[in-house]
Amino acid sequence: MTPEEFRHYGHEVVDWIADYWANLEALPVSPDLRPGEIAARLPERAPETGEDFAAVLADLDRVITPGLTHWQHPAFFGYFPANTSGPSVLGDLVSAGMGVQGMLWSTSPAATEVETVVLDWLADLLDLPARFHSTGTGGGVIQDSASSAALVATLAALHRVSGGAWRRSGVRERYTVYTSTQAHSSIEKAARLAGIGDENVRLVEVDQDFAMRPDALRAALDADRVSGATPALVVATIGTTSTTAIDPLPAIGKICQEYGVWLHVDAAYAGAAAVCPELRWSHAGVEYADSYCFDPHKWLLTGFDCDAFWLADRAELVQTLTVLPEFLRNAATESGEVIDYRDWQVPLGRRFRALKLWFVLRWYGAEGLRAHIRRCVATAQRFAEWVRADERFEVVAPHPFSLVCFRLRGSDGPNEKLLRAVNATGRAFLTHTKVDGRYVLRLAVGAPSTEERHAAATWKLIQATVDTE
Amino acid sequence: MTPEEFRHYGHEVVDWIADYWANLEALPVSPDLRPGEIAARLPERAPETGEDFAAVLADLDRVITPGLTHWQHPAFFGYFPANTSGPSVLGDLVSAGMGVQGMLWSTSPAATEVETVVLDWLADLLDLPARFHSTGTGGGVIQDSASSAALVATLAALHRVSGGAWRRSGVRERYTVYTSTQAHSSIEKAARLAGIGDENVRLVEVDQDFAMRPDALRAALDADRVSGATPALVVATIGTTSTTAIDPLPAIGKICQEYGVWLHVDAAYAGAAAVCPELRWSHAGVEYADSYCFDPHKWLLTGFDCDAFWLADRAELVQTLTVLPEFLRNAATESGEVIDYRDWQVPLGRRFRALKLWFVLRWYGAEGLRAHIRRCVATAQRFAEWVRADERFEVVAPHPFSLVCFRLRGSDGPNEKLLRAVNATGRAFLTHTKVDGRYVLRLAVGAPSTEERHAAATWKLIQATVDTE
Repeated sequence: MTPEEFRHYGHEVVDWIADYWANLEALPVSPDLRPGEIAARLPERAPETGEDFAAVLADLDRVITPGLTHWQHPAFFGYFPANTSGPSVLGDLVSAGMGVQGMLWSTSPAATEVETVVLDWLADLLDLPARFHSTGTGGGVIQDSASSAALVATLAALHRVSGGAWRRSGVRERYTVYTSTQAHSSIEKAARLAGIGDENVRLVEVDQDFAMRPDALRAALDADRVSGATPALVVATIGTTSTTAIDPLPAIGKICQEYGVWLHVDAAYAGAAAVCPELRWSHAGVEYADSYCFDPHKWLLTGFDCDAFWLADRAELVQTLTVLPEFLRNAATESGEVIDYRDWQVPLGRRFRALKLWFVLRWYGAEGLRAHIRRCVATAQRFAEWVRADERFEVVAPHPFSLVCFRLRGSDGPNEKLLRAVNATGRAFLTHTKVDGRYVLRLAVGAPSTEERHAAATWKLIQATVDTE
Repeated sequence: MTPEEFRHYGHEVVDWIADYWANLEALPVSPDLRPGEIAARLPERAPETGEDFAAVLADLDRVITPGLTHWQHPAFFGYFPANTSGPSVLGDLVSAGMGVQGMLWSTSPAATEVETVVLDWLADLLDLPARFHSTGTGGGVIQDSASSAALVATLAALHRVSGGAWRRSGVRERYTVYTSTQAHSSIEKAARLAGIGDENVRLVEVDQDFAMRPDALRAALDADRVSGATPALVVATIGTTSTTAIDPLPAIGKICQEYGVWLHVDAAYAGAAAVCPELRWSHAGVEYADSYCFDPHKWLLTGFDCDAFWLADRAELVQTLTVLPEFLRNAATESGEVIDYRDWQVPLGRRFRALKLWFVLRWYGAEGLRAHIRRCVATAQRFAEWVRADERFEVVAPHPFSLVCFRLRGSDGPNEKLLRAVNATGRAFLTHTKVDGRYVLRLAVGAPSTEERHAAATWKLIQATVDTE
């Protein structure tokens, strides 16, 4: 495809996306499909000769769009949001067009330096501790996801606690990892991948607000020490996936210091809230963290994948992950004056993902980002009020951010039925969780196109669904 | 940013990229920069209020472009190519605009089904064994990179060899991994990350063509068995990073069968060559592989990240990686009729990366892809002829694909100096490796814009540089 053909078809694709966004509200949020229906619309083999671009574009409407759950739909309230925005898409587009590799500083200096600067900007926007700043011993990097951030934090913790022996000899003793019963499954997955084993992950009990109990953490650490295990890592969460509970970092942090255990803080969803000063109480105690991450690709208008991960001691992570073959040696690396982000992550290669974050921060500015967060939080708080005003329902957990967990009073069956019925209308999409063993509906506000009227219409839909059953 | 604003600025960005590509040849391939020069052009903090898009776009020319090594430049011959193309960029753009999550089938069925189908198409295009096809027990998935593919293959091998005990208890014995001295550093990194330890990776000796010696592999396996270690994984390479050597899969595969060891085949760069029937001899023995990967993002006109990874037994990988929390439970998953790709990879979240591959396969067709590979191979073969015709130089390794390894006869110093001088002109970019302990220049042809004249001009530049020194 020549540059001029790209220009022509590129305009068509941009128009297609603009139309998709403009018409999104009219589409069902999630599709009604049997497994295999989309695959059946595709030929069995790749074409032998090239096709017209018009045929490809037409298939977006024929094959793809009817097979999507529309995560950018204003009535998408499932999981956590994975929102994006115009400037994010355009930053990503520039990155794809440049097609440069940022694995080493020398393979495209701008890709590394813009990432370092933008992560410093972002740390300042969240008012994160100075120790995460690249001007000191720390620094930030973009990972694909909080899962990968948890994995590299786990590995760095093993490196530290073993005094470096882990790198050479592997996992040669029984290490333990601590997180709450409400933590994301990626913590357990990271421990498994690192060779620690599922049975060495301690799911620490939580209090009535679903936050980790520091006394239970201490008891678990003591029990493992007595049994001869080596505690390696504590993962605390700001904004758990089920209910957005906030683990008490000040108390947890002190325990980690006392026991000499790496503290990783997973704020995947709720970290974005810290751009608002009035929500920063949720981050109290973050100065104890050895590493911290949140996902701009969840709630900060930046498309997947963009997890922002910071460490207090970047040298430790580089020692953990570096392998330097001859074909990657270069003068800049040997000078010690540059960051080579390949040593901060699992893969070697990396895209220029900082561009989209840079575009987002500049287009919205700090005030624009705060306005987005505030709008989502206000909408969720209004929704919780509506739920509370209907005595058939109950709100089952604190909701300081933009997620509300609620249910019909009584048994699980009607709640499961309600969720299925609401989603089947295609007019809204919610997901569920279990809280204290009970089936609970989750409504998470996050898409930039979501206004209060969408939440209000969804609440009316929920009420009407209950009325007719 | 409203859809109409996106339409407006989107056209501007598309035009910017078309112009970037059209003018690329006139730019220096790599920049002449001191560490920190790009960072110094950025303000210290994110803006408080949003900026005009024009300011952002202008900074692409002021800040970013001068800080890039231009991987899509026709005179970029470094590392392996990381090429892209118009249809790939547009497929990625659609994916970014849709902003859907493909972690579960149910979170966007089309994202999963198109990926499964397109990976089947690709397996057919490469004439890979039927056991990798999704219609049987196998299947393909897009990983971000061959590094991550090596990691999940390592984990699946640990799961298998431990009879599942690894998942529960972690790495509780000494496992060993085998690959050649010429293998990519990601194999060692994967073993480290999985908790196997650097000292348990055996770098098996190679023959005069830098291919793994089966007898040396067998000897290493025997020695480890005697010492009480458990061999877990053999990684063979088709097209090593230094010289594109090809490990003898038929002999290696038989040994893996005999010893009951997982065989992963890393064809990151050279896999793309198998779209051409006349280059498929390089894949002889691939039917022994338990897993296989190659990178369409290297040499098949698809932008990073897009590693295509296949397994013979997909159930084994799912058992290795799955963790199922309540908030991800859904009817489709429980039916057992769908693929949830989150269980095939490290992260939970995933973009709709199959779109760009689908766009590429349809725009170029099988014939277009073969023409691209053939053009690159022909250009590299011509380059090798020119080198051979100059008695000051030697070609130091077989060059069946599009990489030529060569050097000035004699000591390393003049070769190091030559590489530095050539790259400093900005008119071409090559990288180096060491072969048999000697410093060697690598010229890899891969960018779609590279024509024979660019290789010819680069050869003239190399000769002239030697002449003047």
